[in-house]
Amino acid sequence: MDNYNTPTLKKELANYISGYVDGEGCFCISFSKREKLNIGWEVKPSFAVSQNSDRRQVLDLMMKYFGCGFLRRDYGDKTLKYEVRSLDELLEKVIPHFLAFQLKSSKQNDFLLFTEICKLMKDQKHLEIKGFKRIVELGYTMNGSGKRKHSKDILLSNLKMKI
Amino acid sequence: MDNYNTPTLKKELANYISGYVDGEGCFCISFSKREKLNIGWEVKPSFAVSQNSDRRQVLDLMMKYFGCGFLRRDYGDKTLKYEVRSLDELLEKVIPHFLAFQLKSSKQNDFLLFTEICKLMKDQKHLEIKGFKRIVELGYTMNGSGKRKHSKDILLSNLKMKI
Repeated sequence: MDNYNTPTLKKELANYISGYVDGEGCFCISFSKREKLNIGWEVKPSFAVSQNSDRRQVLDLMMKYFGCGFLRRDYGDKTLKYEVRSLDELLEKVIPHFLAFQLKSSKQNDFLLFTEICKLMKDQKHLEIKGFKRIVELGYTMNGSGKRKHSKDILLSNLKMKI
Repeated sequence: MDNYNTPTLKKELANYISGYVDGEGCFCISFSKREKLNIGWEVKPSFAVSQNSDRRQVLDLMMKYFGCGFLRRDYGDKTLKYEVRSLDELLEKVIPHFLAFQLKSSKQNDFLLFTEICKLMKDQKHLEIKGFKRIVELGYTMNGSGKRKHSKDILLSNLKMKI
């Protein structure tokens, strides 16, 4: 970030990053079966940006800019991914950036749904049946409802809290 | 562009576009066999940005921003593409933007090679054997030398000017 040491340069970088993310980034909510949890499901929000590893400069820059997250190799599609998965970091570092420097494609809608889910999670709503159902409804309208491991019906069927 | 009607907003959009293009854009030089041309090959520069057509907003915005180019459907990969192919428009509208608002990944190297080739073409060097060879050498170091219809050897073999 040493090269972006004035407010003007920082703002230019911020707009550049929003443009890059509008193309290559993803705001995702995934659901994993976790029998040990009261509700039986874990809700996992993540922000990820992919890039071929021979062009990793922007991912390094983004990690420095946001001051959180990590890089990992995705052996599936042979890319390098910059990811933020911590709810607190998403709420405190990632989401405020995209509220200030908005996406210009319809990915903005996904971002707003993502933000709403993260806020519900901050309020622990994902640990209650009503809140969890709301999160599933919101999550399943994101990203064109692309490939999903679990159907919405499976997530919502037979929900009951353990005592 | 009505929403970007101050110098500050225009600059923010400019940085955003460079970010978007660093992720999704391509500067390409392609070569087509053209027996009727003196050198036997046509050199075609293009700037292209792809997007799923359900998120075409950014492509529309880019076309307005650059004030040139066109949108076309790519039936091969089922995307919508914003393209600029006119050498004059590339030199007068596209290249100056990316000189002012630079890419931050190694795609910047490709852009600089692309710029050099466009300038050589402006000087009609692609119509001479020496200039054409130089363009082939530059073009074949771009974009990780990805898929190419013609090998470099084929392009450079038996070059002779018709009289």
